[in-house]
Amino acid sequence: KSKTSKKYCGLTEFVGTAIGDTIGLVIANVDYTLHEFMKLDKKYRSIGIVGGRTGAGPQIMAADEAVKATNTEIITIELPRDTKGGAGHGSLIMFGAEDVSDARRAVEVTLKELDRTFGDVYGNEAGHLEFQYTARASYACEKAFGAPIGKSFGLIVGAPAAIGVLIADVAVKAANVDIISYSSPAQGSSFSNEVTLAVSGDSGAVRQSVIAAREVGIKILATLGEEPKTDTTPYI
Amino acid sequence: KSKTSKKYCGLTEFVGTAIGDTIGLVIANVDYTLHEFMKLDKKYRSIGIVGGRTGAGPQIMAADEAVKATNTEIITIELPRDTKGGAGHGSLIMFGAEDVSDARRAVEVTLKELDRTFGDVYGNEAGHLEFQYTARASYACEKAFGAPIGKSFGLIVGAPAAIGVLIADVAVKAANVDIISYSSPAQGSSFSNEVTLAVSGDSGAVRQSVIAAREVGIKILATLGEEPKTDTTPYI
Amino acid sequence: KSKTSKKYCGLTEFVGTAIGDTIGLVIANVDYTLHEFMKLDKKYRSIGIVGGRTGAGPQIMAADEAVKATNTEIITIELPRDTKGGAGHGSLIMFGAEDVSDARRAVEVTLKELDRTFGDVYGNEAGHLEFQYTARASYACEKAFGAPIGKSFGLIVGAPAAIGVLIADVAVKAANVDIISYSSPAQGSSFSNEVTLAVSGDSGAVRQSVIAAREVGIKILATLGEEPKTDTTPYI
Repeated sequence: KSKTSKKYCGLTEFVGTAIGDTIGLVIANVDYTLHEFMKLDKKYRSIGIVGGRTGAGPQIMAADEAVKATNTEIITIELPRDTKGGAGHGSLIMFGAEDVSDARRAVEVTLKELDRTFGDVYGNEAGHLEFQYTARASYACEKAFGAPIGKSFGLIVGAPAAIGVLIADVAVKAANVDIISYSSPAQGSSFSNEVTLAVSGDSGAVRQSVIAAREVGIKILATLGEEPKTDTTPYI
Repeated sequence: KSKTSKKYCGLTEFVGTAIGDTIGLVIANVDYTLHEFMKLDKKYRSIGIVGGRTGAGPQIMAADEAVKATNTEIITIELPRDTKGGAGHGSLIMFGAEDVSDARRAVEVTLKELDRTFGDVYGNEAGHLEFQYTARASYACEKAFGAPIGKSFGLIVGAPAAIGVLIADVAVKAANVDIISYSSPAQGSSFSNEVTLAVSGDSGAVRQSVIAAREVGIKILATLGEEPKTDTTPYI
Repeated sequence: KSKTSKKYCGLTEFVGTAIGDTIGLVIANVDYTLHEFMKLDKKYRSIGIVGGRTGAGPQIMAADEAVKATNTEIITIELPRDTKGGAGHGSLIMFGAEDVSDARRAVEVTLKELDRTFGDVYGNEAGHLEFQYTARASYACEKAFGAPIGKSFGLIVGAPAAIGVLIADVAVKAANVDIISYSSPAQGSSFSNEVTLAVSGDSGAVRQSVIAAREVGIKILATLGEEPKTDTTPYI
């Protein structure tokens, strides 16, 4: 739905754009007073910023790869209620770095990963499903979902939320995984119409759990509209 | 706007779909660990799930009939900020039952009632109005609005919220009713652009109150766009 | 996007409509019991109501002029998560007055000011920017943003929120202004996909700060879509 724009604007702060109306920016030296108001860790004056209208999971998973690959930290993850009239979230993620080149690199990696991490987002006119999997969670998954660092991690999202309840149940019954968090419209989400389940455990089990939920989710969401489709390519 | 889909998907958990992108599902035996994370009453392992993108009042009123007609309890009602770009809520309602056939029956009744309970929802390009009335409120109305069980109950909703303020005032002046709750964008709603008034009292008075608000609401909303229309048939 | 409707409806409570699906209403004598539930100051039985689907800043700035020009008080400002699928807020603003003619006058002034205060709202398919400036803030700016009364005041908003972060930094670096408030999707906003910066200070500095942010904001938002456009006429 959202196209990647390849426009440039001549500002050094601009890094790039990607799917989901996602934009990547850097600030080499955040104004001192603003820094206080933003309640950021004082350690980092250079920040990388990634934010999109559509998608929180994809941006978080992409940022997770970025923190693994760069000398940065995830300093904040906020989830607006967005998706441009859809049922889910948008995102605002900030990386802290001592050097602006590190912040820029983290933003670049995040933008580049997004085509992949949008791969198992399936939508139709009535709602969406999202599935994510990583063999080794890092600091973005920890910050957003409390995922244990270095362990296999999976994410199961269904919207409207009723579908999320069902596929959460399917996911935990399909394999021996540990539930890390469960969020619903009024508990742990920004009033999005989603249920989100985060699971951890053995790599094979997490993958099996996510795949089982995906199979059921696609069948169920299809009863409300057309066959749910991804805009990119499934990766799980 | 939202069409009822009559698709089936071969899963025993699927019950059906209805107006408002509403889906009905059952889980015979919710996974034990997930049950804990969902913070549900341990008494019920079987749950019925009804959730929609558009509408909270209609689904709650329909669920109210379902609890009257079945051996179930309302265990949770959550209101996402939704309506697919509209001004209001979506919904996630769960029934608890000792037997899955009871849960299924409750979901079936809810889906079937929805055409009626969407009857006094009127919309145009600028907003919507919703009116509900029951001679005898049950547990869904109690859970969602604090309605006294067994008493007559009415609901008055206007969006944008400014319209809701006006018709709430019209409603309470039109007849001798008791205000149960008043909610506005930042107080008691999920940041929806609505004002919602819930009233109780003598059956004739409640009906009169709701009808007076409806008359004014339709005139006022029409100043922002086309004549507000229902997608089904008025029942009040 | 939103057209001004010039319809009338024959109700004395109706004042008018304006851009942003904004409606203006008055109630001469709010029902006593409802007044309690609305948690309004008991001093005012007459209220003026202004509410829109799209825009909070424009309505607040317009209301700010209205309180200067009339014998009214701002009694409540609430920000729903709205903009009809866009990234921002709608609004619900109430004026209290001892006389209904004062309330009506305040609503009239607000509606009339809206074309101007929407002047520096720039949007495209991906997001929006908003800039406001007044040489002398009054009670609406104080209520909504904590602006010091009588001092110059500026507002800088960017959506998606990532853009708001960048232009907030640009604004405070461009001139010697004081930050009054900074809000982001999960802190101080209604989960909108915006960052909002409110600044105060010397009149020339505030203006310079807002203009610098506007210049950068328009360039940056253009990378996600078409050239951002205003629906009315810039005033800053």
